[in-house]
Amino acid sequence: MRHSIEMEKLTLGVCYYPEHWDRALWKDDLQRMKQYGIEVIRLAEFSWALMEPEEGKYDFSFWDEFLALAAEENMKVVFCTPTATPPAWLSEKYPETLNADGDGNLMYHGMRCQHNLTSPKYLEFCEKITRRMAEHFNKYDCIIGWQLDNEVNCETNEYYSKSDHEAFRAFLKERFGTLDNLNEKMGTIFWSQTYTDWDQIHLARRSTVGTGIANPHMQLEQVRFISHSAVHYLALQASIVRETAGDRFITTNGIFGNLDYQKLMESGVDFIMYDSYPNFAYAMDRPDGGEGDLKDRNSSFNLARTRAISPLFGIMEQQAGPGGWNFRIHQASPKPGQLRLWTMQSVAHGADFVSFFRWRTCSFGTEIYWHGLNDYSNRPNRRLEELSLVKADLEAIKDIAGHPYEAAVGILCDYDNEWDGQKDVWHGPLRNFSTDGWFRSLQKKHIPFDFVDFREETNLKDLEKYELLVYPHAAILTKERAEILTQYVANGGKLVMGCRTGYKDIYGRCPMQPMPGEAAELCGVTVEDFTFLAPGEPMEYVNWNKKRIPAPVFNDVLEPAFGGKAEGFFEGNYYDGKPALVTKNTGKGLAIYFGGCFAEETADAFLEALSIQTPAPWLVLPEGCELAKRGDQYFVLNYKAQSCEITLKKKVTDRLTGNEIEGTYEVAPYGVLVLL
Amino acid sequence: MRHSIEMEKLTLGVCYYPEHWDRALWKDDLQRMKQYGIEVIRLAEFSWALMEPEEGKYDFSFWDEFLALAAEENMKVVFCTPTATPPAWLSEKYPETLNADGDGNLMYHGMRCQHNLTSPKYLEFCEKITRRMAEHFNKYDCIIGWQLDNEVNCETNEYYSKSDHEAFRAFLKERFGTLDNLNEKMGTIFWSQTYTDWDQIHLARRSTVGTGIANPHMQLEQVRFISHSAVHYLALQASIVRETAGDRFITTNGIFGNLDYQKLMESGVDFIMYDSYPNFAYAMDRPDGGEGDLKDRNSSFNLARTRAISPLFGIMEQQAGPGGWNFRIHQASPKPGQLRLWTMQSVAHGADFVSFFRWRTCSFGTEIYWHGLNDYSNRPNRRLEELSLVKADLEAIKDIAGHPYEAAVGILCDYDNEWDGQKDVWHGPLRNFSTDGWFRSLQKKHIPFDFVDFREETNLKDLEKYELLVYPHAAILTKERAEILTQYVANGGKLVMGCRTGYKDIYGRCPMQPMPGEAAELCGVTVEDFTFLAPGEPMEYVNWNKKRIPAPVFNDVLEPAFGGKAEGFFEGNYYDGKPALVTKNTGKGLAIYFGGCFAEETADAFLEALSIQTPAPWLVLPEGCELAKRGDQYFVLNYKAQSCEITLKKKVTDRLTGNEIEGTYEVAPYGVLVLL
Amino acid sequence: MRHSIEMEKLTLGVCYYPEHWDRALWKDDLQRMKQYGIEVIRLAEFSWALMEPEEGKYDFSFWDEFLALAAEENMKVVFCTPTATPPAWLSEKYPETLNADGDGNLMYHGMRCQHNLTSPKYLEFCEKITRRMAEHFNKYDCIIGWQLDNEVNCETNEYYSKSDHEAFRAFLKERFGTLDNLNEKMGTIFWSQTYTDWDQIHLARRSTVGTGIANPHMQLEQVRFISHSAVHYLALQASIVRETAGDRFITTNGIFGNLDYQKLMESGVDFIMYDSYPNFAYAMDRPDGGEGDLKDRNSSFNLARTRAISPLFGIMEQQAGPGGWNFRIHQASPKPGQLRLWTMQSVAHGADFVSFFRWRTCSFGTEIYWHGLNDYSNRPNRRLEELSLVKADLEAIKDIAGHPYEAAVGILCDYDNEWDGQKDVWHGPLRNFSTDGWFRSLQKKHIPFDFVDFREETNLKDLEKYELLVYPHAAILTKERAEILTQYVANGGKLVMGCRTGYKDIYGRCPMQPMPGEAAELCGVTVEDFTFLAPGEPMEYVNWNKKRIPAPVFNDVLEPAFGGKAEGFFEGNYYDGKPALVTKNTGKGLAIYFGGCFAEETADAFLEALSIQTPAPWLVLPEGCELAKRGDQYFVLNYKAQSCEITLKKKVTDRLTGNEIEGTYEVAPYGVLVLL
Repeated sequence: MRHSIEMEKLTLGVCYYPEHWDRALWKDDLQRMKQYGIEVIRLAEFSWALMEPEEGKYDFSFWDEFLALAAEENMKVVFCTPTATPPAWLSEKYPETLNADGDGNLMYHGMRCQHNLTSPKYLEFCEKITRRMAEHFNKYDCIIGWQLDNEVNCETNEYYSKSDHEAFRAFLKERFGTLDNLNEKMGTIFWSQTYTDWDQIHLARRSTVGTGIANPHMQLEQVRFISHSAVHYLALQASIVRETAGDRFITTNGIFGNLDYQKLMESGVDFIMYDSYPNFAYAMDRPDGGEGDLKDRNSSFNLARTRAISPLFGIMEQQAGPGGWNFRIHQASPKPGQLRLWTMQSVAHGADFVSFFRWRTCSFGTEIYWHGLNDYSNRPNRRLEELSLVKADLEAIKDIAGHPYEAAVGILCDYDNEWDGQKDVWHGPLRNFSTDGWFRSLQKKHIPFDFVDFREETNLKDLEKYELLVYPHAAILTKERAEILTQYVANGGKLVMGCRTGYKDIYGRCPMQPMPGEAAELCGVTVEDFTFLAPGEPMEYVNWNKKRIPAPVFNDVLEPAFGGKAEGFFEGNYYDGKPALVTKNTGKGLAIYFGGCFAEETADAFLEALSIQTPAPWLVLPEGCELAKRGDQYFVLNYKAQSCEITLKKKVTDRLTGNEIEGTYEVAPYGVLVLL
Repeated sequence: MRHSIEMEKLTLGVCYYPEHWDRALWKDDLQRMKQYGIEVIRLAEFSWALMEPEEGKYDFSFWDEFLALAAEENMKVVFCTPTATPPAWLSEKYPETLNADGDGNLMYHGMRCQHNLTSPKYLEFCEKITRRMAEHFNKYDCIIGWQLDNEVNCETNEYYSKSDHEAFRAFLKERFGTLDNLNEKMGTIFWSQTYTDWDQIHLARRSTVGTGIANPHMQLEQVRFISHSAVHYLALQASIVRETAGDRFITTNGIFGNLDYQKLMESGVDFIMYDSYPNFAYAMDRPDGGEGDLKDRNSSFNLARTRAISPLFGIMEQQAGPGGWNFRIHQASPKPGQLRLWTMQSVAHGADFVSFFRWRTCSFGTEIYWHGLNDYSNRPNRRLEELSLVKADLEAIKDIAGHPYEAAVGILCDYDNEWDGQKDVWHGPLRNFSTDGWFRSLQKKHIPFDFVDFREETNLKDLEKYELLVYPHAAILTKERAEILTQYVANGGKLVMGCRTGYKDIYGRCPMQPMPGEAAELCGVTVEDFTFLAPGEPMEYVNWNKKRIPAPVFNDVLEPAFGGKAEGFFEGNYYDGKPALVTKNTGKGLAIYFGGCFAEETADAFLEALSIQTPAPWLVLPEGCELAKRGDQYFVLNYKAQSCEITLKKKVTDRLTGNEIEGTYEVAPYGVLVLL
Repeated sequence: MRHSIEMEKLTLGVCYYPEHWDRALWKDDLQRMKQYGIEVIRLAEFSWALMEPEEGKYDFSFWDEFLALAAEENMKVVFCTPTATPPAWLSEKYPETLNADGDGNLMYHGMRCQHNLTSPKYLEFCEKITRRMAEHFNKYDCIIGWQLDNEVNCETNEYYSKSDHEAFRAFLKERFGTLDNLNEKMGTIFWSQTYTDWDQIHLARRSTVGTGIANPHMQLEQVRFISHSAVHYLALQASIVRETAGDRFITTNGIFGNLDYQKLMESGVDFIMYDSYPNFAYAMDRPDGGEGDLKDRNSSFNLARTRAISPLFGIMEQQAGPGGWNFRIHQASPKPGQLRLWTMQSVAHGADFVSFFRWRTCSFGTEIYWHGLNDYSNRPNRRLEELSLVKADLEAIKDIAGHPYEAAVGILCDYDNEWDGQKDVWHGPLRNFSTDGWFRSLQKKHIPFDFVDFREETNLKDLEKYELLVYPHAAILTKERAEILTQYVANGGKLVMGCRTGYKDIYGRCPMQPMPGEAAELCGVTVEDFTFLAPGEPMEYVNWNKKRIPAPVFNDVLEPAFGGKAEGFFEGNYYDGKPALVTKNTGKGLAIYFGGCFAEETADAFLEALSIQTPAPWLVLPEGCELAKRGDQYFVLNYKAQSCEITLKKKVTDRLTGNEIEGTYEVAPYGVLVLL
């Protein structure tokens, strides 16, 4: 499967840092890992200073010693390039390798990731150590794959060092060819911003409104540039490692902003590993969300995002204890059962490999509170005890590896709109609001869904597997993408689009055309008028199918066109009674344009009207449970601290216990079933 | 009329940017404008890069081409100097022209207004292009006036570039002559701040408490210096334009901080144009104010401020659609009727000229969401439809031009107190609180009022037209101004002053004298004690005329003196029963000192006690309506989305419809009447 | 008494600034002070520019003139070194003397304290003027003591100038000897932070997470370094002054962050003077705390902290009017009675000397609103009137001087935990929470307590005077300190420790050992598990002694060990029923480990269970009153605006009135009794 991990069975791993511990502990650590079913360890991602203690002097003896032991203990290894943490001597001697803020203030050694992604000097250092490491370590059979860097764009995803300004210019030259073209596409005639020399161009430095703000079209290009830099940065390492890696996999971990992971997958990285920390949602500085807030499924949302990149993926870091840094982030401990529940959540969503972070809590440094499976004391604890259960569970369902998550609903997303919407408050926040509304509705109705990265390159086949596609607020909608959607609908698909669709081009400009641009014919609609709903204004509703559904945040006032049919009508505000929902049948399918954002209740109404059902109609679940499906097996995950009652209308087997169950059944607190 | 626009009739205009559009659209645009009654367009305020594409190379051909068409279409033009948006080449080559933050971080090209107002190099560039433009364009008959720059001090009104520090020194040298004098006036003996060399003096850079904070008296001088710089900056352009402008008017637009508009009017700018965007009060990030919050009359407040500068003024930018930038500011759309209502609001307050912003929404740049009359699509819409009504309205009352707004109540304000109070939390916030209280009370009682810029130069005649003057918290009250007020009272005026009056001198120092300083004899009072009301303390009241009125925020505990008479007494706190309100009769008039701030209810009580009446006692209006008077005509403006009932106790004519009306009458939602 | 002021009787003083006033006022000022019982004035702390108007040119004539008058008027003087406010010429000419922010932005002249504490140039200037002043002024008999600098570390307690980075390196070299040792102790192997050259080491500059954040162990060293710098800075002055001071005392004022006052006391400063401004708790920007918030006793908390440094101390600045700066801080006026109440509060807690800030409110500068005893007007006022009562009060109890505050409860605190906890959100905030809980409980139960600075050097004798010691969350607990506590308990003491005890070493690392580390044997306990209580989770309780007491914020789940006995058990969460409170008897005493934080109600339960009683069981006081004891005399302080009823079960004398009282008795609003 494209961009997917290929594991023969569900496999457990752990992140291990032998450099943090006395050698006397190593053997015991490895042997205990194996007792718990751990077969793979991740190594070395922060050990540059260890391997290149001074410039150009490489010393791999530490890892040679450890890898010999690992091989002896039959432990497999994911080895890492250490480029996320340049050594002190490098940052001190070559300040041009450092990242900077919008005023040019350098980010110095002291935490991690102080480097930029573009300085020729830094790239040269990365290239050298990567090559030396690849040549040296690819001899080890125990190494089954490589992780490049660590969580690229995590600490920050903005870069303003000198080399970034220069690389940005080169990127724009490549992209626009001439200044005239750039000036036109970027609308620089506005506010007299015309560039007459490439050297006048910079990333968004300080302006009168602070740093990081500039011409909006340039800002979109700036994000594209950052993504380009990050992809290039990792691709460079990938190509070097690949030379000697044989069939070892090459991956990187985490999903962070300003990075096009689809492009990354096309640039030499085989698949993505996600770092899953469900308790971020419960950190001490996050306000209580109240009953039914779905914080407990925050990771399901993120795992869906991960699947859009790699249908089968690994979890490189699975939360194994309370998380925290010393100066910020402080989380409650996972409750008994959650370590197992979260592992199964990852598996349910498509993980074939789950590696815990980390074997033992570090005794020093910023992450003394990022607790691992073992406590400081290295004594037995309840998390290790729970790990034994996980081992048994994964053994019971190990053949699920290779079977992807299955969903009949797709939520379309794309980097153009995501990135433009990061700054553009006229569509970005709407998308977040509506995606949340759909997520809540789908979760509570137990309807699995995928996020689908929608690109010019997207294949119609990739879409046709979905009965319903939702594209909430595609402000930027190219002709090419509109055509794919038209075909999708013609072939029988159901498509729902929300307000603010199709009014921008790929530079974030608003061309002279009626809204919703390329979606007009597809959805059979013209936008006559539009408005935000101001603070203090009452909720706006749409009457549709004899129901009254919320149309919050922003409204497009519609007029049917191109054969569309008004079916829903606004209630309230100055456009009371005007069309709010227009449908159009094309071929065997149906497109709907909705002139509002999607609250949970709004999405509920759409799912009902479009007869989108759970794939397991024989299974009655409470809202506190999630349903997921891999291959022909159904995962039931209870996120609540209380047991819950479910109803099975047919006899099925719980593969974790081997029990046949039917009728009403009690799922334990934080309990998991895998039904077949 | 001094500092006023001189239009023969109420006139409509629009801001137009031919440089943003294909030439093919120009003629149609101009012809459609005329259909809607638009007779004037504003041009070129952001087109420096177009006119000086490289240093010293001027090219006016674009505007020559457009102006020829404008002349042909009989369209009048306000032409602008483009100095608010220096070209990229200028900012890049001459960083000394850039503004900086308190740490000296430069503000670069990317938004607008990145320049400072003092660098000799920038002033030289401004002088040159202004001279070239004046010489070139003053030949065009279609040009009826000039706008200098655009919204000076809007993006920021603080400047910390090197040239600003230098100009500040020169300003202080001119003002104080010697360091000894400066040291004394600025109280530098405090905290060992004594200057022994002029070069030791800077604007408020970073100190231990952050940037922008320093010796308070120096800070007041700093604001005076910024205003001085801005006035000088515009006066330079005015003098150049004036050389060749003939009887064309010279104006500038907007009202912003740290700028003494009275001085500006004396420096070559003929009158002020205001930029009126009522929906700022309803932006998405402003919390709902609840029922009766008067957000709907926020612009009436600002227009009153505008009238204090230019009794008859123009609106250079009248909101014509939802406003917003891409990264901040997002407003609901004006409701149907509001475009007309807001236009009439401007007229009611003294506008003889109303120019909409802008003809068509821009397709690119930061202001893609600052919607104009036309949408991106350039198709007919409801705002254009409404514009037709506006044309008819203004035609119906066009003779009102030249007749100023009439009010019997004046609220005194002055730059000394405003500027000192920007930093001084012991009087500035009180003034804002109390001005709001008076505004709310006057609005709801339908009593028109003026803001009056009170200066040493203020003529007694300027004050005598008011039955009541309110000077809420004149912390700085000079002998000269106290004398004018004494004369005003002696001649029959009523004067109300609030707590915190008269304890500061013009440098913001607190000289050794009893409070309220120069107001003591005028109001017949001494301040015995004073206190803020701490958070959690109950509301303080004053018993006066058998009423119990609020005395919030701060209290002066009073003692009658110089013939004053205690009439109101505190209720609560440790000064329970002590005098809170002292009156003194002088000549034919009355002065009142009130030892508190003015809540709305407090102002209500004063208006009642002093028998201040609406000028239209024959007209009964609900609170949702504003009453305004120009000449002998009465404007009734309904700010509510609902129609309302008013009662006319005599027969009058609604000039907009020509109908004679009497008795109860229903005013439409957002409706306007002009009664005679 | 060690580190204590030695006054023969309770003495009044005032801060006076003759340099702010016309010479004509001086004599009258001094004579009026004496009328009010003021015998000491503080002089000159901000007058460097006056004494060294240009570099190297010293001119003491101003002070000679004034001191002659002071001597003539028999006024005693505390004279100050003026190093808190370097002159403009110094800061301008020697920018290396300036402090900087984390990005290196300098803090310039304009406010005060713009200097750093480490630049050789600044120290040279300080040394020179201090030497000249000491040599010159120690001739004056009227000078009874010296104040060094003013409120060191008040404006800021972080320093990032070039000299600070250099001095930090030197500090670490001295402390760690070798880089290898430093790397090990600081855990730099984590995140590849290993230093290979001393020059790579800096204070926490900008990193990817902002400025001021770095490796947590380096950050703790950074605070130790700042304290070291400040102590060195003051010790240098102390040693110079001491050369010629004879038996004059040497002090400094205020208590501020990042400064080890115990070390300061060992470095040449004789005792501490506190600056007590009770109305900070009531500043306008502090939210109302609601009924029973104990804001009124905020200063009692601070005075307890002061006593931990100097059992008998002075108040160098006692609030004498509303406080405020012009641009921030604005307080209500002290109510009638509070000036006296606050003075007696200081005395009750151990002050033998109380000096008001300031004689007359300054007419200029940042502190125009830091009101003194006299108003700007210099006319009689109610505060001066109240001062007459204070004079009589202190006369009545003058013999209390030399008798310290007496308490049977000690709350242990130490700089290791305080400083580590400033950044570490996993224990610092817990300590603040629990200290507040104990403070509230002790106050309301009228049980006097001391803060005890717990150090390796702490003498067992210093602890044994306490019946109960509370050490809320000693994350860092050294073997040495654990041993002292073990002895304390063995000798009959009662000790209460809270969750998060003993898991860190003195570098803030978490060594491989069971929690609570060194406290395990002492308290007879092991920590099995632990967790924060996440937002939204219900309150956790502990059942102990048939009571249900709150265990908020964080829980340690316990297991008895080493002879401990589980007596309290959790109720709720996943560890419901597990041990929460373990007691262990050692020798004659008892140690208790409590697996939670201490809310007020929690502390109540401990005080009851441990039978800790008020020292005046014959006196029944409402919660609005504080009880304090010096020698054999009992202070009753009523902080409420209302009078209150107390009950005396035996006949005692109120020394302030001389009245014998018994039974129910009414204490006036803000009233004070001193009972014997």
